Amino acid sequence: MEIPSQVQVKHNFSAGPSILPGEVFAKASQAVKDFDGSGLSILEISHRSSAWTEVMEEAESLVRELLSVGDDFAVLFLTGGASTQFFMTAMNLLDSERSAGYVDTGTWSAKAIKEAQAFGQLLELASSKSDGYRYIPKDFDIPNDLNYVHITSNNTVYGTQYHKLPSTEVPLVLDASSDIFGRSIPWERIQAVYAGAQKNMGPAGVTLVIIRKSALGKVHRHIPTMLDYRTHIPKGSMFNTPPVFPIYVSMLNMRWLKKQGGVTEMSHRNAAKAKLLYEEIDRNALFRGTVDPQDRSTMNANFLLTKSELESDFLALCDQMGIVGIKGHRSVGGFRASMYNAMDIASVQVLVDAMRYLEDHKG
Amino acid sequence: MEIPSQVQVKHNFSAGPSILPGEVFAKASQAVKDFDGSGLSILEISHRSSAWTEVMEEAESLVRELLSVGDDFAVLFLTGGASTQFFMTAMNLLDSERSAGYVDTGTWSAKAIKEAQAFGQLLELASSKSDGYRYIPKDFDIPNDLNYVHITSNNTVYGTQYHKLPSTEVPLVLDASSDIFGRSIPWERIQAVYAGAQKNMGPAGVTLVIIRKSALGKVHRHIPTMLDYRTHIPKGSMFNTPPVFPIYVSMLNMRWLKKQGGVTEMSHRNAAKAKLLYEEIDRNALFRGTVDPQDRSTMNANFLLTKSELESDFLALCDQMGIVGIKGHRSVGGFRASMYNAMDIASVQVLVDAMRYLEDHKG
Repeated sequence: MEIPSQVQVKHNFSAGPSILPGEVFAKASQAVKDFDGSGLSILEISHRSSAWTEVMEEAESLVRELLSVGDDFAVLFLTGGASTQFFMTAMNLLDSERSAGYVDTGTWSAKAIKEAQAFGQLLELASSKSDGYRYIPKDFDIPNDLNYVHITSNNTVYGTQYHKLPSTEVPLVLDASSDIFGRSIPWERIQAVYAGAQKNMGPAGVTLVIIRKSALGKVHRHIPTMLDYRTHIPKGSMFNTPPVFPIYVSMLNMRWLKKQGGVTEMSHRNAAKAKLLYEEIDRNALFRGTVDPQDRSTMNANFLLTKSELESDFLALCDQMGIVGIKGHRSVGGFRASMYNAMDIASVQVLVDAMRYLEDHKG
Repeated sequence: MEIPSQVQVKHNFSAGPSILPGEVFAKASQAVKDFDGSGLSILEISHRSSAWTEVMEEAESLVRELLSVGDDFAVLFLTGGASTQFFMTAMNLLDSERSAGYVDTGTWSAKAIKEAQAFGQLLELASSKSDGYRYIPKDFDIPNDLNYVHITSNNTVYGTQYHKLPSTEVPLVLDASSDIFGRSIPWERIQAVYAGAQKNMGPAGVTLVIIRKSALGKVHRHIPTMLDYRTHIPKGSMFNTPPVFPIYVSMLNMRWLKKQGGVTEMSHRNAAKAKLLYEEIDRNALFRGTVDPQDRSTMNANFLLTKSELESDFLALCDQMGIVGIKGHRSVGGFRASMYNAMDIASVQVLVDAMRYLEDHKG
């Protein structure tokens, strides 16, 4: 198979940590040398300095503006990733007299269930596990007396996404790690939203938590100070030293996002990128998608080769064309193309070109 | 008062986040643009890539080499800062049948005591609180049946440091946040050492934990997966996405440290810097130190003006001379000069020059 000549540009389809805009990398790189002409690196400035306080305030204000978050919610920048939020949400929100409902749509919701069940009664409302998590369960019953309903709005590993949230009067807790800033959020239905930064928000090392303030203070268990959301709210996420650089880069990324037109524009672009790739997956006889079409994620597209013996050819071709991070999660195999906000549709076109090239030469 | 002409070089005496070597900033800045010629930013590479795994392995190996850590200890890179370790050490190590001993030498040990007491019986072995934490308590009794003894090896806020660890058969848990890599550690006496990175190890956003493996698994309470040290040991601190960039910069800083001659060389340099500054504090009638001389920290020197009306003059002079981060902690006032490993003695000399200039013009 003749392969196109080596290119320098990389098209990063990694699932997270993942692509961020080039101008964010450029500005972040400069700040590591000299932060805004201060003569100091962003890595050595005091988190109590006014220069830093301004960054924190801008970061919070950009989250509020981009996602239309009202004053009834606190916006926090914490650490420990979604894996920490799996238990921290239950520890802070789940009282011992009621139950919380969980929907199992893959690896991450299963982990959320495992961690939360130490803090109260859980009701597994639905699961697509026995069908290899290839769809989002629908039309299941949700009792009205639940404390909250937890869902993983986008499943990074399996490539499924809720395009419509479950119908219920019960407030929702969303793990939105892989589609935050890619969709609007119906705040009137929300108790809490959390997201590890390293997909659509920024680099690894910071976790966004948006929590309804009136939902806090209703459980009676002991909560260590650092694990109590109420510790961080009056301190503006600076009860202790925050992860300065990950927050700074997230702020730069949100500035970029705002300049591009915000979440509405991103949801249009993400839909267009997903359409381009899924149409090729469906058209090209060498490939097939792994999840039910109506539940396909706009963020992570999972697909297989119909002739698995072509896998090494396809990976070599991708490598030659600058396509990075296309291998599927180690637990599911195949391929996965993550197309977060910062990815231009031109990069998706390169992947589609690679798929067509393979078809032309090996199909 | 005539003030020397404006200089460009900054001398960063901040208590943390704090100074790191210039060559670390240069290399880190480059990696944000292009990590080791990969065509990708360090911020967008997968934490499962071999390029990243090599960084993690080098970081762990440098900790082991620089601090002479044996195989009976695990070296972990976690998040949440020392504030999270305050409860996590007790949660993992303190069993309900025994007590742990704590020494109260300031803000951080008091917080460690507050968080740990939810997990078992604590015995406050000694405190210098009633004397404004101006010394390290000595010659107190330590019962032999304690689970462990917790001390804060260096007190960043008050500027005191244990130059000799307490004598006891009981294993020690050290909060070494502000003097890690500045002193050798007697591992045969240690149960655990923890340190927020943002003083002597790297930028904010990662926490070093070195824990004796045989001390784990002896408590019977429920521990959430992310809070159980045993989760992270077999996963090489990658059970979930690690704080990539803070770990990378810490690794670069440890490379630098090794090249300089390691911890022994640092302890000599730190002693020389401290001697230079404390001798000026003692000699110059305009200044006085705030802690007992034998317990003075080599990392953080706290001092006051004897004529407090000169404070704004001194701060203006420091500003003109490029001296940054010299104001004392908001809870104690006065001045604090933090002289971590990356600070050259030439910067301490600039501070001494400023103190002499003030004496010559206002004394």
